[in-house]
This record gives sequence, C-alpha cells and structure tokens, in this order.
Amino acid sequence: MARPFHTYNGPFKVKDLANKLGLSYEGDGEKSLHDVNTLTSATGDELTFLDNVKYSEFLTTTAAGAVICHPKFADKIPQGMTVFFSEMPYVDYARVLTLFYPQQGSGKVHPAAVVDETAKLGEGVTIGAGAYIGAGVVIGDRTVVEANATITHAHIGTDCIIHSGAVIGGDGFGFAFDGKQVLKVPQVGMVQMGDRCEIGACTTVDRGSLENTVIESDVKIDNLVQVAHNVKIGQGSQIVSQTGIAGSTKLGKGVIIGGQSGVVGHIELADGVMIAARSGVTKTLTTKGTYAGFPAVEFRTWKKLQAAISRLAKSKGKS
Amino acid sequence: MARPFHTYNGPFKVKDLANKLGLSYEGDGEKSLHDVNTLTSATGDELTFLDNVKYSEFLTTTAAGAVICHPKFADKIPQGMTVFFSEMPYVDYARVLTLFYPQQGSGKVHPAAVVDETAKLGEGVTIGAGAYIGAGVVIGDRTVVEANATITHAHIGTDCIIHSGAVIGGDGFGFAFDGKQVLKVPQVGMVQMGDRCEIGACTTVDRGSLENTVIESDVKIDNLVQVAHNVKIGQGSQIVSQTGIAGSTKLGKGVIIGGQSGVVGHIELADGVMIAARSGVTKTLTTKGTYAGFPAVEFRTWKKLQAAISRLAKSKGKS
Amino acid sequence: MARPFHTYNGPFKVKDLANKLGLSYEGDGEKSLHDVNTLTSATGDELTFLDNVKYSEFLTTTAAGAVICHPKFADKIPQGMTVFFSEMPYVDYARVLTLFYPQQGSGKVHPAAVVDETAKLGEGVTIGAGAYIGAGVVIGDRTVVEANATITHAHIGTDCIIHSGAVIGGDGFGFAFDGKQVLKVPQVGMVQMGDRCEIGACTTVDRGSLENTVIESDVKIDNLVQVAHNVKIGQGSQIVSQTGIAGSTKLGKGVIIGGQSGVVGHIELADGVMIAARSGVTKTLTTKGTYAGFPAVEFRTWKKLQAAISRLAKSKGKS
Repeated sequence: MARPFHTYNGPFKVKDLANKLGLSYEGDGEKSLHDVNTLTSATGDELTFLDNVKYSEFLTTTAAGAVICHPKFADKIPQGMTVFFSEMPYVDYARVLTLFYPQQGSGKVHPAAVVDETAKLGEGVTIGAGAYIGAGVVIGDRTVVEANATITHAHIGTDCIIHSGAVIGGDGFGFAFDGKQVLKVPQVGMVQMGDRCEIGACTTVDRGSLENTVIESDVKIDNLVQVAHNVKIGQGSQIVSQTGIAGSTKLGKGVIIGGQSGVVGHIELADGVMIAARSGVTKTLTTKGTYAGFPAVEFRTWKKLQAAISRLAKSKGKS
Repeated sequence: MARPFHTYNGPFKVKDLANKLGLSYEGDGEKSLHDVNTLTSATGDELTFLDNVKYSEFLTTTAAGAVICHPKFADKIPQGMTVFFSEMPYVDYARVLTLFYPQQGSGKVHPAAVVDETAKLGEGVTIGAGAYIGAGVVIGDRTVVEANATITHAHIGTDCIIHSGAVIGGDGFGFAFDGKQVLKVPQVGMVQMGDRCEIGACTTVDRGSLENTVIESDVKIDNLVQVAHNVKIGQGSQIVSQTGIAGSTKLGKGVIIGGQSGVVGHIELADGVMIAARSGVTKTLTTKGTYAGFPAVEFRTWKKLQAAISRLAKSKGKS
Repeated sequence: MARPFHTYNGPFKVKDLANKLGLSYEGDGEKSLHDVNTLTSATGDELTFLDNVKYSEFLTTTAAGAVICHPKFADKIPQGMTVFFSEMPYVDYARVLTLFYPQQGSGKVHPAAVVDETAKLGEGVTIGAGAYIGAGVVIGDRTVVEANATITHAHIGTDCIIHSGAVIGGDGFGFAFDGKQVLKVPQVGMVQMGDRCEIGACTTVDRGSLENTVIESDVKIDNLVQVAHNVKIGQGSQIVSQTGIAGSTKLGKGVIIGGQSGVVGHIELADGVMIAARSGVTKTLTTKGTYAGFPAVEFRTWKKLQAAISRLAKSKGKS
C-alpha cells in the first residue's frame, strides 16, 4: 500500500468525484480512481493534477487515469484521457485528497498526554502522546495537538493544529538590569489564538508580558518559527519556516513572510504585505506590496540593488 | 480576571508598594492598586510605568491609577495623579510585577516528569510534565525545568529556568571521514551551567566533546538558539532568539548577541561585545564595542557600508 | 571522575591500543592510558592527538602520556614521549574514544517512551523517555531515539540516531487559497530514512505531500534544521545547524551545507556541492564546488564581491 499512514476513504468513481467536487468532466465516468499522485508517478487507476504551466508538457506523457486541469489546457489533453475541468486545480487537488484521506483528528486524548485538571477541552479535541496542556488552558472544538507539543498560558480556538514540539505560551524574553543584577520581568499575559490556525513543529509562541500575544484566525505558521511576546499576527497571515518576529510587532491581515526572515520589534506591517525569504524587516511598512533584503526595501528597489552588487563583483576593483 | 494563569498576591495600597520598593511617592497613599498594565490600557485601579521617552505623551492621557516614572518627567505628570518616582522605572516595574505575581516554581516534580534515579535534584526544584532528567544530571536548588524539556549530561546551577522543548546536553555534531565512511566522534564532555541562567524554548545546548560546554551564571538565552559543543558563554551574557554559536567559541562576560546572528567556531568575543541582530561574526573580536553585518565589522563601519550600498541602488547602473 | 556520564571501558595499555587500532607506536608499550584529552589538558596517564598543524607547538609542552599524530611531525615529538603514528589522526582519535567510551544505545525501550502498538522496532532499538513512535512507523536495528523525540509517518533505517526534540514525519506546510478560505493540502506521503543517519535536536523533517521525503544513508543533520516536504538528501550529505531546505529540493550525494543557510524549493544541488555558512541558494547548482553568499555564487566570485563591498565602505561616499 502506497500510503501506509493514512485513513483511506477511496476508491471513487470519476462521476462521483465530479459530483462531490462540483466539477464537469470528460471521459469515463465509471472509471474507478484508487489514489492521487504526481503527473510523473501516477498510474492508470490514479488521479493527478496540473497546476503549474511549466509542467504542462507532462500532460502528454502521464500514465494517470485522470487529471484535474484548467480548461485553458483543453487542447493539450491527449485523446482518451479522463479530465476534470477546474478553475482552481490546486484547490480541487486539495479537496480531492481530503476525500481520499480524511484529515480530522481522532478526537481522543492519548493516555500518555498530560492535561491539567483545570484545562478546558472542547468537543472532539485530539491530544497526542506526551503533549502537555497546562493549567487554565482552553482549547476549542476539533483542535488537534500533536505528540510532545506544550501549551501553557493560552486560549486556543477551534479547528487548530498544533504540531509536535511546538511550545505555545512560554515566557517572553524580558530582563531589567539594575546596575548589579539582571532581573526577570514577569510575563503575565497569555497567548490568544483564533480558529483554524496551524502552528508548526518546534515553533515557539511566547505569551505576552502585560497584554496578550495574539494569533488571529486562519494564521498558518511553519516549523521552527519564533513569535515573541506581545506580537499580534492578523487573520490569514502565513509565516514560513525559521522566521522570527520580535516583541510587540503587529502584522496586519494576510501578511506573508518567507522563510528565514526576521522582523524587528515594535513595528507594524500593513495588511497584505509580502516579505521575501531571508529578509530582515527593520521599519514599519504602511503599504501593501512585496519587500525584500536586509534592511527590507520594496522588491523593485531590491532587484536594482542586487543588480548593482552583481556588477560590483565584475568590476576590476578600482574604486 | 485579566490574568487567569498567574498566582495573584495583590491588591496593594500605594503606601505599601512604596515601602516595599523603597520609592518615594506623591498622591493618595491609601489608594488600592489591583494590577499593572500599559500606559494605554491601565484603568483607575491599575499601576503603569513610563520607561521610554517616546511614550511620555501618554502620561497626560493615561487612565491609570498610578504611574512609576523618572523624576525628570515630574512636570509632565497630570495634577492629581499618584506617582512613584524611580531612577530605574523599568527595573521597578519588574519588581512590582513580581510582587503582584510571584514567580517561583511550584517546587514539585510533576508525576508525569521522568527523573532518572541517579539524577540529583536540589531543594525546591520544579520539574514539569514530560520533562526528562537523565542519568547523573545534577540540578541546583529552586531551578525550574518546564514541561517537555530534556536534560542529559549536565550539571545545572541554582535558580535557573529551562523552558519547554529545550534540549541540554545532546550530542555535539562531530564526524571524522576515513576515506570510506563517516565515523561518529564520541562526545564525552558535559554541559556545566551556573546559577540564575535561563534557557529558552526549543533551544539546544550540546555537551562538550572532550572538555565541557560552559554556561556561566546569569546567562540568558532566548528561544531556538543553538549552542554547539565546547562553547563557553561568560557571565551575564544574553543571546537573542535563533542565534547560533558554533563549536569551541568563547564569549566573554556581558556579551549581547542580537537575534538570528551566527558566530563561527573557534573564535573569541571579548567582554562586553555587542552584536547587532542578523550579524555573522567570522573573526575574534578583542575589543568591547558594537558590531554588525556579515562579516561583522564595527558598527560605525557597517553604517558607512550600508549607506554606500544604499547609494548603489540609486545609481544608474553604469559601472 | 572526569567523565561522569559515559560507560567507561578503559584503561588500555599502549601496546593494546596500537593493536586494536592497527597503528605503529614508539615508546612504552606497557604504559596504561586512562582517558583521552586535549593537548593542553591531558595529563601523564592520558592520551591526546594532534590533527591541526596550528596546534603543533603544543606537542612540545603537552603533559600527555601519549599522542596520536601524523608521521610528518615525528621530528617535533619530544624525546621520551610515547607516540602512535597515524595517517588520519582525527579518525584514530574518534576510534580510540569509541574504545574508551562505547557508543551503542542501551537497546531498551524506556518505560516512559510511547510506542504505538502498530509500530515495528528492529533488534536492539533504544527509545528514550517521552519519545513517541507513532502508528505504522518502522525503525531499523540498533537505531537510537533519544528522549522526547517524535517520529510519525516514517520508515527509519538501522544504526540511526534521532536526537531529543527532533520531529520526524510532521505535516508539510501546504495550503491552497480558493478566494475565500485557506484549505489545508493533505500531506499523505511519509519520511523514508536510510541507515546510519543522525538527526539533531529540535530538527524537523516533514513528511512528503504525495511522494516521500527521502533521507539517504549516512546523512548527518545537526540541530534546529528544517527539512521540508518532498526534499531528498543524497547519501553522506551533512547539514549544519539552523539550515533550512525548502520543499521538493533534491540534494545529491556528499553535499555539505554550512550553518544558517537556506536552500529554496524545487531546485537541485549536484553531488559534492559545498555551501558556506549563512548562504542562500536560489538556483540549481549543477557543478561540484564551493558556493557562498545570498544569492549563492561560486566561492571565488563571492570573495571578489566581498572585496568590492569592503572597498565601498572605504570610499568617500561619492556616487
């Protein structure tokens, strides 16, 4: 079996998938599809999809039994191939995969999980082995906490996924030096997380110092990301792996930050700001758009700068 | 209740706080203060503080019942406001928060913690659920090990805090290639940590290969930091999130390293060296001062370089 | 006792070590060696080694009872010192340390480990306290999983070491936006790991989305590294701490990546490619060699660029 780790709900007939997805199709509606696979690996009883134009050449050679693709590729589809037409092939690929492999958690607390007796779990919450849910924590319905995650000082919404090794609600990094010794500044806020959020493996979200660290609904955070105390991340934002957001910074809605980036503390990023990977954002960005570099500047400026630097390397070294 | 997760020792009368903190005050000594909050959020029965000049405008509009501030702002304080005068408002804010919300651990080993029978725990040590204290580990009095932290091959001092997900005493990354295969170099040293240290969530401190990895007293390390084998970090140093210190490097006392920085192996940083965020230090730094960039240079040089690069972006692209 | 945390198999006589290592020696074959230490710390009953030319001065001052060194240093060895001659002193240092301190795991599953009843463990597998081995996971003979590591959706080979806090087989970061909401893309692949691999503390290796994430044999990965979904890492590659490899990227055999580097998704690095620390690789590299910078270029080009940038800082700021 190709997918040993997942609950399998297939196979599906082509006509039934089309019905469930609300898509039109051409070809053999009675054909039974057993799995989903890539254009180059799919076999005759598997479904595949074309999302990226640069892979369209594989349409003519794929051995897949059926393909989800945009109507604009209709003329490239080999004769006899069964095809689902979709305006958003990647979205429908996600939806069909969810039909084959349903994604909900078990809805159970593993016997080796540790849930403090004062924590409140909603309906159908899944807690993995070794996960720790601390005193007073509230977790919304259907949220999944994977094995060995740690949640303290937090209210988590519904339908969230907290991955293994993540630490939500730890102490922020705050110290005061009195001239003789370093005093710890108590961190008496919490983490307030909305619904449908995802927090990656070994990602750390510190609790607030006085006010709360806030992760709004639909925020998706990848692995090994640092979210410092008092940060606010607006709805639908996505933060890619190994990025760090320093204390008290506020991200608007739909902000996207590429991997290994850093954002300094006490600034604001406007709704819809996109930050390229490995950037360092040092100032408030008030305008939606794409930014890159360290210090981060508008993408267009950064491209010019990169070109200028590249020319430097080719110069003869006369200044 | 605004602070659901913390043991609460308040309220306090103004005159009693002044007494405990050793501060003078003006205003209503009988006023009862129920909590501490920011200048913009504090209500009439809450205490706030002014530390940063740029927030001084909020002094005139805050609804707080009392404020801790420096005497130099005396003339900006609205008539009738109760005020504590402090030479170090941020320090006294930390102290007052500690009065409201005492910070010591429970002093208990959680039933779901795993402490090897050969480990030695001091008086009042707190070990969280799922934390693992390996064979032979020694932990000093009052140290707190949070849930799901892992400590092996280490001696930890008193009054330390090891946060969730931290891994202390893991194998260093050492291999020898014999021309055919990669041999593991045994890592037979340990981690020696002083008193009052703090190690952040998901931070990794590898044990020494032959000699020890040493974290001196009062060192504060943020989340997701990598400390490689044989590193020595001098007393009172602070390392911000996602920084990495490569093998055998020695940091002096009071070294401060900004977030997402890297320091190569086998070098030394002098006492009092400060490294700006996202810097890469490639050479020994023998002089106290601030450094930035990759390769890191004196801050003044780096500023010049940044200005020169910035001009490049504005040039017409003729080389 | 200098090494409180390790099983000790010594002492050894010089002649016996020479025999076991297959090395020639000069000096007192009956001398008993009790431990291994650095050139500067070793005492008269300890063995040391000289690997790096720059430490050769210490040969004349070391108090060690014996030294492993290359024959080319024969004339620098003080009279009367016992010496093992080795073509590869660092390799023989690793071998001798392994004799003194055998490195195999206990071969036991700790009572506080959680192993799903459908997981399959080979012979002599060691699983630490709090580690979680999920449903269907397969782990090869003699592999060691340290405390609080998490393994799901994975097949792991023989003789691997998975360090504490590592998360193998977590969800990849994949989402599809349908114009209204962000849909999770199910991640139905797994992690396929070969033999003799090492995965560092708090390192995350995501499972594949459709195909598998593949870590070939003899791959060594340091702490806090991110390996995204569908990545393939070729045999014998080494990835240093805090590096990130984005989705679907393929590394050839023997690729070495320095710390805090990043590699974008959907590219390929040829066999034998070396990437300097803190580099950002943005394009496929088809030729063996060393690369550095962001965007990463050939090392020679990068050196020129660094020199040009350095001159910029010294220029008068006229553009």
